[in-house]
Amino acid sequence: MKDAASEQDARGITIQRVGVRDLHLPIMIREKRGANAHVLGLIDASVELPKTDRGTHMSRFVSILTQWAKKSVSMSEMEQMLRDIVGAFNSRAGSLKVGFTYFLDKRAPASGIESPLDYECRFEAEIEEGAYSFQLVVTVPVITLCPCSKEISERGAHNQRALLTVWLASEPGHIIWLEDLIPLLEAQGSCEIYPLLKRVDEKVITECSYDNPKFVEDVVRDAVLALRGLPGARRFIAECESIESIHNHVAYARAEGCRDATGEVH
Amino acid sequence: MKDAASEQDARGITIQRVGVRDLHLPIMIREKRGANAHVLGLIDASVELPKTDRGTHMSRFVSILTQWAKKSVSMSEMEQMLRDIVGAFNSRAGSLKVGFTYFLDKRAPASGIESPLDYECRFEAEIEEGAYSFQLVVTVPVITLCPCSKEISERGAHNQRALLTVWLASEPGHIIWLEDLIPLLEAQGSCEIYPLLKRVDEKVITECSYDNPKFVEDVVRDAVLALRGLPGARRFIAECESIESIHNHVAYARAEGCRDATGEVH
Amino acid sequence: MKDAASEQDARGITIQRVGVRDLHLPIMIREKRGANAHVLGLIDASVELPKTDRGTHMSRFVSILTQWAKKSVSMSEMEQMLRDIVGAFNSRAGSLKVGFTYFLDKRAPASGIESPLDYECRFEAEIEEGAYSFQLVVTVPVITLCPCSKEISERGAHNQRALLTVWLASEPGHIIWLEDLIPLLEAQGSCEIYPLLKRVDEKVITECSYDNPKFVEDVVRDAVLALRGLPGARRFIAECESIESIHNHVAYARAEGCRDATGEVH
Amino acid sequence: MKDAASEQDARGITIQRVGVRDLHLPIMIREKRGANAHVLGLIDASVELPKTDRGTHMSRFVSILTQWAKKSVSMSEMEQMLRDIVGAFNSRAGSLKVGFTYFLDKRAPASGIESPLDYECRFEAEIEEGAYSFQLVVTVPVITLCPCSKEISERGAHNQRALLTVWLASEPGHIIWLEDLIPLLEAQGSCEIYPLLKRVDEKVITECSYDNPKFVEDVVRDAVLALRGLPGARRFIAECESIESIHNHVAYARAEGCRDATGEVH
Repeated sequence: MKDAASEQDARGITIQRVGVRDLHLPIMIREKRGANAHVLGLIDASVELPKTDRGTHMSRFVSILTQWAKKSVSMSEMEQMLRDIVGAFNSRAGSLKVGFTYFLDKRAPASGIESPLDYECRFEAEIEEGAYSFQLVVTVPVITLCPCSKEISERGAHNQRALLTVWLASEPGHIIWLEDLIPLLEAQGSCEIYPLLKRVDEKVITECSYDNPKFVEDVVRDAVLALRGLPGARRFIAECESIESIHNHVAYARAEGCRDATGEVH
Repeated sequence: MKDAASEQDARGITIQRVGVRDLHLPIMIREKRGANAHVLGLIDASVELPKTDRGTHMSRFVSILTQWAKKSVSMSEMEQMLRDIVGAFNSRAGSLKVGFTYFLDKRAPASGIESPLDYECRFEAEIEEGAYSFQLVVTVPVITLCPCSKEISERGAHNQRALLTVWLASEPGHIIWLEDLIPLLEAQGSCEIYPLLKRVDEKVITECSYDNPKFVEDVVRDAVLALRGLPGARRFIAECESIESIHNHVAYARAEGCRDATGEVH
Repeated sequence: MKDAASEQDARGITIQRVGVRDLHLPIMIREKRGANAHVLGLIDASVELPKTDRGTHMSRFVSILTQWAKKSVSMSEMEQMLRDIVGAFNSRAGSLKVGFTYFLDKRAPASGIESPLDYECRFEAEIEEGAYSFQLVVTVPVITLCPCSKEISERGAHNQRALLTVWLASEPGHIIWLEDLIPLLEAQGSCEIYPLLKRVDEKVITECSYDNPKFVEDVVRDAVLALRGLPGARRFIAECESIESIHNHVAYARAEGCRDATGEVH
Repeated sequence: MKDAASEQDARGITIQRVGVRDLHLPIMIREKRGANAHVLGLIDASVELPKTDRGTHMSRFVSILTQWAKKSVSMSEMEQMLRDIVGAFNSRAGSLKVGFTYFLDKRAPASGIESPLDYECRFEAEIEEGAYSFQLVVTVPVITLCPCSKEISERGAHNQRALLTVWLASEPGHIIWLEDLIPLLEAQGSCEIYPLLKRVDEKVITECSYDNPKFVEDVVRDAVLALRGLPGARRFIAECESIESIHNHVAYARAEGCRDATGEVH
């Protein structure tokens, strides 16, 4: 049976990335406490294709990923998954992104009642010129209460749900657990949010956010300060998108940082 | 050239609707003041196919719609568009939905500064057993400020952007202008929202929403009351989705109404 | 602590539905073989609010649903979940929708290699005037190959991914397993699709779809015929959306059916 | 009236970008023939905020953009728009992205019948360290017919809609018209696609795509070759996403290029 993908190519153009995207697989994410979270994985996997080859064998991606879907995955396994992929294609470079919704139990501030909150997460691994790099992407929902609105108004202040997203490159060999990173980020808004709240909790959250007004600029600066103290963090970007209650558009800010506050990573 | 779509069908199953969806066309919506708004139309058009026919000629939908894209469209033209479609297929029934983003100029409450706000709108026409019906669908963004949060808290109150959507069936022959309907709906939240606000405006909006707390239940009931007074309105559904600032989910309510408060349309 | 939601309401307007939407919870779906699939649940839960009451206690929905998230759910448990909700609010009516992505292992037609394919599913339960009803919604991806294109062309035929969605109301007390319904629907396209295919499989699928051309009209009629033979099915709607490869829009058809081909359910 | 955004900030953290996103405005895009296309603009505008300042005055973005919404915009006006924004904030850096759906009339290959096809486009401007750069982003839908499927099958070949997206940085002062770029890209798939096709056209397209099989790898390489010949193009990335008809995931490839095939721009 002929194999059109294995033909030689005369156009002389390297393809930086070729692969599959929007592939859904049921996967297991290793939790900090050792158990597994069963999540819906949304996967993007690709490799570099040399200028001499016409095509890629796309089924190999699915074959390798399907095997991995039976194992527990954390930041550390991502390197082996991507090395398996890049190896199978005998390729110089490749990328692997695994997106999923993760849950952590939240305890309401006054009643102590528990409920699971959802966070959008993504593991992003890359091999370029043989070098491996990894990035963790997490989005946490928080409240932002506008300092300007509070300052100028005789009563009340506009507030809204906001999304704080962090892209975080970690030190090699260091696992940063979502269980540690997420609470750190949730603390940077005007107040945290929860699926389940009794009235005594709602009072606490309303007053907490009113007492702690923050612009999106404040949220990302405070996130950068907090991330500087996170062991294993190397470089990071913090972006906050606020679903403004007084507008039909979003306000956002983005700041970059690294572990060493003086500016460079050692 | 053979025509597979014109074949007879032996399965004996009527197809209630067959047609095209997600068709984008540049269209013109007639404004109340007589000019045209040039909008991006998202179109869904379909007809009934009798049990005896195997297929439909899909190109006829696009051909008719492309012709109409050159003319000014309001609620009234929708009937002719749909009759053209149903006629071209010699069909007993059909549907036509035209979705678009519409803009109205908003004047900020204190500074008077103007800016255009966007509203998601849809014209929905249907012919069934020869009878024509029409429904106008509009979504307007507003603020909702939580009465419970205000009541129980010593300071502040959580608030957020909310979307009030109305499905409105009108009296035959009566045009209900978006220019009339949208402001009516915007008045039903805790406060209206605007693209462009100076600080003097933000103060007004913050205090207005604090002074006017509303549950989603309040918003839809007030919308029903307001719609009862709208000339040409026949039956309507009002739904409010509030993008809760203290949760990562939405709170919503839906109420139905008709022109005659006693319960039935005359 | 005052309770604004418990106030009396003088507006005299019943609220048909009030509740939460876009609530994410990790839930367990009972599989036919008895094990549990851990899925990401997307939930919409609501009740009727009488005209005399101002508001609803939204936290009750989350509280009940969070409890249920620890149990195995199938079509049968949906009734108890919804009765728990309606009971907690002492309400006459209510709705519960649970959406999730479900996986079934597919075996490639020639190589026999296995891989899990994803299907969008939804359980929809409703209580109205005390009567319970249930609807299963499933979307399966298939290929459609155009009969017209094949007929008129000297070689080839345009084909594309299509989505066949079924809304199915079942007989009371009868469980229809996704494991039975999904393969039945997958058989109605020009050919089934798979995550993982070797070249020998790709040959089979290409030729199978070429030998089995179907309009969207054919797909929904054949789905109706197939569903008539499914034990426990009562009434159903089949809709097929074809992501046309020769257009930038979708072609679709929708047909309704019921268990008894003569037209009415006994 | 106090101004919280004008306060000094002690955290010492520069904010790379702060601004508004998902702002909808009705805008006018200058067509090559001199007329204006009225489009729905989706806007993202931001500036750098120095470490010494606490906040930004978000209303300035909306104020400037609202003014520009009354003027005709092409690639050249983007520089002035962004300079207006950066100047208003007295900032060192800033970004402006304007996304919109653009239409070009397509003439069916055999019947010659005309209909407008929609393309997703985006103008992206950036100022960094005083230097202005611009990028044009366009997505065109095409057909891809699989060379492997054709090769190994006795009849037929799977094909599907695919999206070819190009990010193109142009030479300063050189306008690249969408009217020139889009047809160039449409020619790189297995065949072009159209909203309106008669049967004689469908025959041409079916046979054309069958005679011209292309992997996503082929499409992006051919796009790079074609873009090298486009006057005013400087550097570009071509990505093709194929909505595989035989899978429920996407296959994609991405290649980079520049005007000078030997590797560097002069």
